[in-house]
Amino acid sequence: MRRFVIRRVRSLLDRSNQHHHHYKNNPFLLSSQYQSRFLSSTSVLGSSSSPMAPAVTVDTINPKVLKCEYAVRGEIVTLAQRLQQDLKDNPGSHPFDEILYCNIGNPQSLGQQPITFFREVLALCDHTPILDKSETQGLFSTDAIARAWQILDQIPGGATGAYSHSQGIKGLRDTIAAGIEARDGFPADPNDIFLTDGASVGVHMMMQLLIRSEKDGILCPIPQYPLYSASIALHGGTLVPYYLDEAAGWGLEISELKKQLEDARAKGITVRALCVINPGNPTGQVLAEENLREIVEFSKQEGLVLLADEVYQENVYVPEKSFHSLKKVSRSMGYGEEDISLVSFQSVSKGYYGECGKRGGYMEITGFSPDVREQIYKVASVNLCSNITGQILASLVMSPPKVGDESYDCYCAERDGILSSLARRAKTLEDALNSLEGVTCNKAEGAMYLFPRVQLPQKAIKAAEAANSAPDAFYCRHLLNATGIVVVPGSGFGQVPGTWHFRCTILPQEDKIPAIVSRLTDFHKKFMDEYRD
Amino acid sequence: MRRFVIRRVRSLLDRSNQHHHHYKNNPFLLSSQYQSRFLSSTSVLGSSSSPMAPAVTVDTINPKVLKCEYAVRGEIVTLAQRLQQDLKDNPGSHPFDEILYCNIGNPQSLGQQPITFFREVLALCDHTPILDKSETQGLFSTDAIARAWQILDQIPGGATGAYSHSQGIKGLRDTIAAGIEARDGFPADPNDIFLTDGASVGVHMMMQLLIRSEKDGILCPIPQYPLYSASIALHGGTLVPYYLDEAAGWGLEISELKKQLEDARAKGITVRALCVINPGNPTGQVLAEENLREIVEFSKQEGLVLLADEVYQENVYVPEKSFHSLKKVSRSMGYGEEDISLVSFQSVSKGYYGECGKRGGYMEITGFSPDVREQIYKVASVNLCSNITGQILASLVMSPPKVGDESYDCYCAERDGILSSLARRAKTLEDALNSLEGVTCNKAEGAMYLFPRVQLPQKAIKAAEAANSAPDAFYCRHLLNATGIVVVPGSGFGQVPGTWHFRCTILPQEDKIPAIVSRLTDFHKKFMDEYRD
Repeated sequence: MRRFVIRRVRSLLDRSNQHHHHYKNNPFLLSSQYQSRFLSSTSVLGSSSSPMAPAVTVDTINPKVLKCEYAVRGEIVTLAQRLQQDLKDNPGSHPFDEILYCNIGNPQSLGQQPITFFREVLALCDHTPILDKSETQGLFSTDAIARAWQILDQIPGGATGAYSHSQGIKGLRDTIAAGIEARDGFPADPNDIFLTDGASVGVHMMMQLLIRSEKDGILCPIPQYPLYSASIALHGGTLVPYYLDEAAGWGLEISELKKQLEDARAKGITVRALCVINPGNPTGQVLAEENLREIVEFSKQEGLVLLADEVYQENVYVPEKSFHSLKKVSRSMGYGEEDISLVSFQSVSKGYYGECGKRGGYMEITGFSPDVREQIYKVASVNLCSNITGQILASLVMSPPKVGDESYDCYCAERDGILSSLARRAKTLEDALNSLEGVTCNKAEGAMYLFPRVQLPQKAIKAAEAANSAPDAFYCRHLLNATGIVVVPGSGFGQVPGTWHFRCTILPQEDKIPAIVSRLTDFHKKFMDEYRD
Repeated sequence: MRRFVIRRVRSLLDRSNQHHHHYKNNPFLLSSQYQSRFLSSTSVLGSSSSPMAPAVTVDTINPKVLKCEYAVRGEIVTLAQRLQQDLKDNPGSHPFDEILYCNIGNPQSLGQQPITFFREVLALCDHTPILDKSETQGLFSTDAIARAWQILDQIPGGATGAYSHSQGIKGLRDTIAAGIEARDGFPADPNDIFLTDGASVGVHMMMQLLIRSEKDGILCPIPQYPLYSASIALHGGTLVPYYLDEAAGWGLEISELKKQLEDARAKGITVRALCVINPGNPTGQVLAEENLREIVEFSKQEGLVLLADEVYQENVYVPEKSFHSLKKVSRSMGYGEEDISLVSFQSVSKGYYGECGKRGGYMEITGFSPDVREQIYKVASVNLCSNITGQILASLVMSPPKVGDESYDCYCAERDGILSSLARRAKTLEDALNSLEGVTCNKAEGAMYLFPRVQLPQKAIKAAEAANSAPDAFYCRHLLNATGIVVVPGSGFGQVPGTWHFRCTILPQEDKIPAIVSRLTDFHKKFMDEYRD
């Protein structure tokens, strides 16, 4: 059934008129492709009064921008925002009283509380004059005050408002490197750390470095987090898909990697890198150590840069699995700097901390020659540095309170409370989804998402086609209109052609889960009753 | 004497062997071009042990990355960092005891203190549980507490750790729009505001939108802030230079704009936008309202997007000049949305606040069609949102304390103290530079820099050539080695071929200025004694 077609992410505004019949072959088909044909005829302001043609129209902007897609903030979310406004303006106008944003991994937007110690340190670093005031002792824990002093000592002049070194403050990179060493049991070098405004910026930097033209390809899992397809499109490269095996719990098979790599090469694509997302987004699997070893070996043999998206490293919910970094795995195989080029991405947005709005993160770059590293540094320097609050938070995340610190018990309670609740929510939602007619859902072993497959009846598929919509987007739109629950169609992440999925976060607070389950179950039953073949 | 050559920013690692004789025609020549020929032969790690070619070498990375240059964090700064380490390891090893970083507009790194009110609000928004504790009253001003509550009310769930709307938190954009209205006396729409991690990100977004290939050109002042040349290079476009008239206080002449535009068009370049930096960086001029009107008229007539870098809008030091935004000027001419496409960039890094490390800023986008705006929004959404701390700070900068607020007097004293001190420092340094043999320096009417011209003797130019260095970089390197003062060679900003300049910030604290003046004067005298023809 699978057709392993290597193709570039298709244009949002592709003007060819046949594209609404193509979805059966295209793992990336987005619902917005159906909509955009109408949007694109919007007239351009000013064209009548200006003596020249208008300065910019969609026909004259960079076509790579047009090609780029980012479904997790796409059309369904725009509709949700409109409904939310409706509810505010006309309470009771919809069959629900709130919008539940399950489209994006944004825990604090759904009520998750930040870790107290982290925020204490950030506040103290923002307004340092209070550090030696007596009232401060009553408001902040002693280890937060000590940590703030320690961080200020690492910043030249204690100036948290100054641009830092373009890789980030050296002392914070020391702390992060020590955290990586403690995690992996192998050395980490602070000079390999580049602090970034979230992980996305690091991914863009690597794509910018590696992609020269559409003849350069990046191997990405399908389904994938659409940052990858978006960034590859923006940089004009080719996404080379490798399919995760849904029947094997979204397993990553080396034979599939090899096949896709060879197919791409046969088509004249220079495959430059292999992206691995572990734990998986949107798929939630946690890769086994043995599997990671195979991935390292494959990358080394094939001369691929290994791009390791490890932002969910703290989000593992099943006792039989644990997180292993690709750096640890490669070092444990005896491979060093000379053997493999590896970039590991980490973020303050995920884990138990969920500090999305702080835009902190780092990439650890190993196995690159000094002259290439110099180029990476140069690109980092063009944006001067990442935000210092995010830098500080990245250091805290990699070096939380320790046994004996005043905050330790509170920190552990907060962390464990969040992680165990996430595990319970994942299980409840997974069970609920699996109980629905025609729906199968793999376990969320990690990360923050479920990615159920929905066996849509032919009647629903036909109705979607008639509505000029992708079938999964049609389902998601109906779900939103009926329940206020916002999920993202599988086509935004890529899926085996002819299969339909959606991504749903496990992030709503636990007391909301029963209502979500019952709304979802009711909706699905009605949908099937309407469209069952 | 001027040769108005339109050329792309030249490659750092251009392998052609003749490039060190080209500098006389090239406004962008960087000293690192001389160095890089040696760097580029660095051997690549792993090439011996790997079964395949190494995954990445400088020969196989994106050539646009190679072409990109960013002098303000370039070779001279790297040398300075080495000297600083030397001083730490071996005190007394150099004829100075500290490095003075005058290479970049980074006020707090040189001791400028943040505005208390701004930092109080940031701290309170970071750690909200203290907002209603009694000790907090003793540590924070009442208006900072009130403002923090107000901001939290604008953030859904008060979640400062959540991703926001991709344009930024709506309530903060309302505040910023109100600030723009108060500044300009014309309406501003919060939906036109895109909050960004510093102004640089906004500039990159616009370049990404506008540049399709090297046939697309962007008119930029020469000298220019090298973010523009770097961003244009990274996006593969062509920088179309227009020269500011040094003899007329770095004036911007429309005839020059017209000439360069026509030359570029004759060469098949589609000129898409005109960048204006006002107050000027690195040149410090403040453009007169009449001049700005001509610029608006020119952009409108020629169908150019007007990119207004207005990040120094609060930095004006002379009573005879004041800042006028290009939006205000265009609206005062009766031009609205239909007439001109205008993007204004603002940042929290400059002004009297100088909060570089917070990476806050915004762009206000007017005169774009809805479908183009949708594309800009999509690109913004791929990075989810800018950091919330920076967003909050951007709102504070556009809405500082008002008469009657508890913080008002303190805020005014801090602001006025910084601005008047900057004005004094600018004048002292300008006078000192003008007293040097062969040096002429225009007034810094605004911004944070002086950009003196140095008439280098032929003997120095020959010595630089023999040292494989650009003459201005040769001068700056000697200055650094002799005094510890870090400035940036004019070639990093572009200059009329055959003229030599450097950029020096006015940011060292006032008590250091006399020593800087005397070190600079001594050095220059010795340099001239050694190289005078």
